[in-house]
Amino acid sequence: MASRSIRLAVIPGDGIGPEVVAEGLKVLEAVAPSGDLAFEQTSYDLGAARWHRTGETLPDSVLEELRGQDVILLGAVGDPSVPSGTLERGLLLRTRFELDHYVNLRPVKLFPGVKTPLAGVTPDDIDMVVVREGTEGPYTGVGGVLRKGTEHEVATQESVNTAFGVERVIRYAFEVAASRPRKKLTLVHKDNVLTFAGDLYQRTLKRVGAEYPQVSTDYCHVDAATMFFVGQPQRFDVVVTDNLFGDIITDIGAAIAGGIGLAASGNVNPDRTAPSMFEPVHGSAPDIAGQGKADPTATILSVAMLLDHIGAGEAARRVEQAVSDDLAERGALGARSTSQIGDAIAKRVSG
Amino acid sequence: MASRSIRLAVIPGDGIGPEVVAEGLKVLEAVAPSGDLAFEQTSYDLGAARWHRTGETLPDSVLEELRGQDVILLGAVGDPSVPSGTLERGLLLRTRFELDHYVNLRPVKLFPGVKTPLAGVTPDDIDMVVVREGTEGPYTGVGGVLRKGTEHEVATQESVNTAFGVERVIRYAFEVAASRPRKKLTLVHKDNVLTFAGDLYQRTLKRVGAEYPQVSTDYCHVDAATMFFVGQPQRFDVVVTDNLFGDIITDIGAAIAGGIGLAASGNVNPDRTAPSMFEPVHGSAPDIAGQGKADPTATILSVAMLLDHIGAGEAARRVEQAVSDDLAERGALGARSTSQIGDAIAKRVSG
Ligand SMILES: CC(C)[C@H](C(=O)O)[C@@H](O)C(=O)O
Ligand SMILES: CC(C)[C@H](C(=O)O)[C@@H](O)C(=O)O
Repeated sequence: MASRSIRLAVIPGDGIGPEVVAEGLKVLEAVAPSGDLAFEQTSYDLGAARWHRTGETLPDSVLEELRGQDVILLGAVGDPSVPSGTLERGLLLRTRFELDHYVNLRPVKLFPGVKTPLAGVTPDDIDMVVVREGTEGPYTGVGGVLRKGTEHEVATQESVNTAFGVERVIRYAFEVAASRPRKKLTLVHKDNVLTFAGDLYQRTLKRVGAEYPQVSTDYCHVDAATMFFVGQPQRFDVVVTDNLFGDIITDIGAAIAGGIGLAASGNVNPDRTAPSMFEPVHGSAPDIAGQGKADPTATILSVAMLLDHIGAGEAARRVEQAVSDDLAERGALGARSTSQIGDAIAKRVSG
Repeated sequence: MASRSIRLAVIPGDGIGPEVVAEGLKVLEAVAPSGDLAFEQTSYDLGAARWHRTGETLPDSVLEELRGQDVILLGAVGDPSVPSGTLERGLLLRTRFELDHYVNLRPVKLFPGVKTPLAGVTPDDIDMVVVREGTEGPYTGVGGVLRKGTEHEVATQESVNTAFGVERVIRYAFEVAASRPRKKLTLVHKDNVLTFAGDLYQRTLKRVGAEYPQVSTDYCHVDAATMFFVGQPQRFDVVVTDNLFGDIITDIGAAIAGGIGLAASGNVNPDRTAPSMFEPVHGSAPDIAGQGKADPTATILSVAMLLDHIGAGEAARRVEQAVSDDLAERGALGARSTSQIGDAIAKRVSG
């Protein structure tokens, strides 16, 4: 049977990025035959090393090459030797914005056997999906600084929100909610303070919601939401929120669902006008880089999301199941290295 | 002995506000003699009812009266019958801004006997103070909406940060840190995305920090900070952060330290050019208003902060100790009403 060929761009990045990506690819190779998939991989040398060497973060020519790919797998970017924001804005956010990744999809799910810091909480209590807006809000980079370094300095940051941008992400969130058993969508914002942006989100939720009578909707201020994540995570099914609030609440989501080593994400362009990009939520963790200590599970779960995105749902389920089985046994297994975890999961998907 | 007379403005506000404020005042009256204090109370009818009656949130004349007071105690404002933001912006935030409450002081402390949702955490693990900026950042109200209601709508919110505003709150935070045993100050921001504002905070931390060699400093992105609040709260001693990040992390702080029913705060004008205002972190909770279900402890702890602010440290310690003793016994006491809790604590401080 002819297998489908997928052009896969790989951006290992900095710190533990290359290590966890290697395990993600290992699992991808292991599951590919069952999904009748062949991956044509291109690896892109982007991140701190390149910046030190050339001063480049994401050259236009590389961005154009990325546009020609089907899908992207990214490890992590950022290093203390590079001024804060340089790689984040110049590489990671630039990719999200240029490739119109307007949905930043972040499941928050507690797998059986995984330790949560919350007392008395079971896997049934934590199972949600956060749909974070990915291309506007406070992440636009709009703003500036006046009289820098003087006592009269003024530094501004502007959150820009458009009807176009808000509607498309809310519509996507309704679709996700409609596909899930509970069919509940919660908007998280701060509409009592950020009144202009909050009002746009609220009106759009109401208007688009009229097309989804089967989905119940709810609203929660971001400050209260963080409290409910810790005290009452059952409250949430699908959450839609802006770029910055989504950044914050998905880290709490990771914390309650067993830690950043398990949190996967997809930067999705649902209209498929450009390739989507899958990456673990964690950063480059330079302090543990190169020691085989990083947990590749978040990257492997991101690979499952990648498989879903390219239409290989059955392969995605196999990877998820393998991860779930591996997690269920971890407590009994003792410490394993990055590649030992990758090997074990790869073995399960192929076996 | 002549007692000192303090002009106290009381804003009971909406929902459970009046109920919890009544208990706060009960405790204040009970502790006053020992502090040689006499309070000259003026109650201000502000909140949802007044807005419905007159359309006013905070009339200029009332604001001027408030300026003439020594200190303010506020319950809570906000009601679902009033458009979101009307009272928050028109009353609460207006007071904070007009009276230059540039320090929003929020202790996060787990008292012995209090249940935390975190597994395996003891009171020694959670003892920090968040110094939240209170007069700028994304709370300025700067921003607007263009082409409202059309598909071309644009809604903006601007975070405005000044050298003046950032320096004074950071300086205050260093003073707090220097007064505590651990002497550790952590800046929480998002300087890899909000580069202009984050850079101003970072440079100011470094510059002011040179004057406090005894205080160690640290930086944490807001998303990671929320994760550490849940997984590693021991990491924090004093935290300084902007207005919006402070709003969010102090709600997680409340969640890990036993819930919003216990979280106190002070909107402080350290230069004493206008009265400071003390209030529980919680909102007006209209769903449980008038039922005697609200926990007045957060308001009573806010009263302790108020006492500290007016120089009645000994009375403040008595209130804190009474709360601490009450909390230690709560587990054994079963459900009590709002006024029963207030009575019990008042009895302890006077007895
Ligand atoms: C690295 C940083 C720019 C990024 C973000 O803020 O989006 C990260 O925290 C994330 O959540 O993917
Ligand atoms: C009611 C609201 C405007 C307020 C804030 O955002 O500051 C509240 O959440 C708080 O933390 O005091």
